[in-house]
Amino acid sequence: MMGVLKGMRVVESSAFVAVPLAGMTLAQMGADVIRFDLPTGGMDATRWPVAPGGESLFWAGMNKGKRSVAIDVKTPRGREIAQEIICAPGEDAGLFITNLATPGWTDHATLAGRRADLVSVTLRGDRHGRPAVDYTVNPAVGFPMATGPEGSAEPVAHALPAWDAIAGGLVVSGLLAAERYRLRHGAGQAVDLTLKDVAAAMLGHLGIIAEHALTGQTRGRAGNSLYGAYGQDFLCADGQRVMVIGLTARQWQNLLKVTGLAEPMAALAAALGADFDDEGARWQARAAITAVLAPWFHARRVADFADAFDRAGVTWSVFRSFAEAIEQDPDLSAENPIFSPVTQPGIGTWLSPGTPFGFSAQAREAAAPAPLLGQHTEAVLADVARLPEGEIARLFDAGIVAQPSRAAMPMAS
Amino acid sequence: MMGVLKGMRVVESSAFVAVPLAGMTLAQMGADVIRFDLPTGGMDATRWPVAPGGESLFWAGMNKGKRSVAIDVKTPRGREIAQEIICAPGEDAGLFITNLATPGWTDHATLAGRRADLVSVTLRGDRHGRPAVDYTVNPAVGFPMATGPEGSAEPVAHALPAWDAIAGGLVVSGLLAAERYRLRHGAGQAVDLTLKDVAAAMLGHLGIIAEHALTGQTRGRAGNSLYGAYGQDFLCADGQRVMVIGLTARQWQNLLKVTGLAEPMAALAAALGADFDDEGARWQARAAITAVLAPWFHARRVADFADAFDRAGVTWSVFRSFAEAIEQDPDLSAENPIFSPVTQPGIGTWLSPGTPFGFSAQAREAAAPAPLLGQHTEAVLADVARLPEGEIARLFDAGIVAQPSRAAMPMAS
Repeated sequence: MMGVLKGMRVVESSAFVAVPLAGMTLAQMGADVIRFDLPTGGMDATRWPVAPGGESLFWAGMNKGKRSVAIDVKTPRGREIAQEIICAPGEDAGLFITNLATPGWTDHATLAGRRADLVSVTLRGDRHGRPAVDYTVNPAVGFPMATGPEGSAEPVAHALPAWDAIAGGLVVSGLLAAERYRLRHGAGQAVDLTLKDVAAAMLGHLGIIAEHALTGQTRGRAGNSLYGAYGQDFLCADGQRVMVIGLTARQWQNLLKVTGLAEPMAALAAALGADFDDEGARWQARAAITAVLAPWFHARRVADFADAFDRAGVTWSVFRSFAEAIEQDPDLSAENPIFSPVTQPGIGTWLSPGTPFGFSAQAREAAAPAPLLGQHTEAVLADVARLPEGEIARLFDAGIVAQPSRAAMPMAS
Repeated sequence: MMGVLKGMRVVESSAFVAVPLAGMTLAQMGADVIRFDLPTGGMDATRWPVAPGGESLFWAGMNKGKRSVAIDVKTPRGREIAQEIICAPGEDAGLFITNLATPGWTDHATLAGRRADLVSVTLRGDRHGRPAVDYTVNPAVGFPMATGPEGSAEPVAHALPAWDAIAGGLVVSGLLAAERYRLRHGAGQAVDLTLKDVAAAMLGHLGIIAEHALTGQTRGRAGNSLYGAYGQDFLCADGQRVMVIGLTARQWQNLLKVTGLAEPMAALAAALGADFDDEGARWQARAAITAVLAPWFHARRVADFADAFDRAGVTWSVFRSFAEAIEQDPDLSAENPIFSPVTQPGIGTWLSPGTPFGFSAQAREAAAPAPLLGQHTEAVLADVARLPEGEIARLFDAGIVAQPSRAAMPMAS
């Protein structure tokens, strides 16, 4: 790897989305990311979606470009080896990310006893030590009750593990910030974060807490309307649905111009005594605005207006299913330089994304496959933990570490 | 500020969620983040939610702890001053984040002409140069068609601007990664990212593209069910709704133990010929599993089982509206150290979140308010752009830069 983080080594003890995604983000920027798991696999080893043979496509997706070490960390020696890998020397090493911190062996204080300048980032459920996942944090802070059709009373949870992905990004940011500090001041540290606090903070950042404090109100369900200005979904004559945005003044004017509806819209504004140049007025009159626009879309197929919309700089999109997006959107094809066909040993070949970043000082690299579970056990024990050959052999014999059979291993790793 | 990034200076030209959130994340870690806007305000100056007086609570939420400079960048001299601020000297400066890059003045090549080692991160809509926002990227990649009640055909958009928040996290990560590279190799660079690619890559990371490639299938709507294992919402006797998780083996066993339903669940598994220790089997049998569990919840109030669930380590949550969350959840109160009452000059006082991170080497700091628009114009022109006093006065006189009247300024900034 020649990425922007080349030379950095990060060890990961994790499962599910947030921390694996953080590790993969670092790996796709060129860091050597070593994930360790039990020889039987981590808690997410069989996470859905799965291939016809049962292999986890989730695991393959979330661990691209990492090295995998299989250690039986239920044994004392296994735990010690994991600690040796985490705390191995190197100016650009001693970096650890986890959502599985265990008191007495992978908590920061214990690890710092082996390497004082360790930087660790630990993601937990909530600040009380209770477990929490995206699916529980989201209802706790209120988003499902503000999602779905206006007037409905049914909560709707998001399908995207958004809090996990947001927290994963913060794990990367927190690690890089603390490593930057260590580089300048020599001191490592423990960085702590909880999934619940990430969501709680976002309620503040978005102004939702302030709105409640100052007005006693909070935003309610608004279907697919863009909140606070104008944006709406419309059904077209070909049965397709589109999302159309009038958030900024320019977007709103472009939309009126290209649909030729500036005049009836002005009449509507006059009838309501509203100024649609004010985004809040568009929000408040959204139902009436939609009533003016809807017949225009109902009467047209997407193909009738797509080019004109693009030429006019309208901000819009069709709604697609996942399958339609994968089959039809050029941004989800090999035309997009972030994607390339990647062969995942033992499973198959499909289009995989590398980092979405373009770094001008580093050439873009194709995505690497995920490792086989334990694929790099021997290599990491030798080159990171620096265990002598004889001891490595004994550890394999004792079943404390494991590695796939040579037959299963890809030719080059 | 004594944060982990103390000493770093970042300049931001932005609007809306992703880049403002990125700048605020950096500011809350101690960086000096300078956002510049037109003297009349940026495109998000009046973004909802708004206070009773019309002030944007969104703006106040997204710009906490930054410095604000008001420059008329529609004038040539105004643009030059913005460039001088972005490219001002300093080993820890020359860092620029934007979603408003304009060819010829805030594109990387132009700015690098003033400071060769500039690091810039530019977020765009899509790789074709088309505009895109969270509300259009989300339908394009397929999530709204996989959200909402099983069997429904209506797309449901998320209420959380998740792609913006994820992209904002990547802006922080990309900036810190490229600054780390500059520190070691001396070279700045342009870091490019699009909102569409962030979403496209996530489809790959989650295994959705692989599933389609290998099985021809993609996940469909599943209501509020946890995908791929077991997790479900239940209505309780008190009218409250709870989310209950059986993702891991331990979560699943805890749930059966605490509800006392291990026996009927085993009978169900036997009847179906299924092994519920297999998470995929739980997913496939979720409707039947829910039928066994639902009467238990229907017959009980949340207060009847809450303590037992917590003691048993069940992963669960109630569903709350935003208002209920703010009023009832201790994690959204001053009991949570990330929150403190913050007075936003000219608007009011409410509970605001600082960074959700705990950095063990830096004391936690209370959130700072957002600046008034232009509050730091004079200070930044003097101490960053290093313009002579007389020129600063002339720029104010010519209306090229602006600052709130002294009466409006907070006593200490």
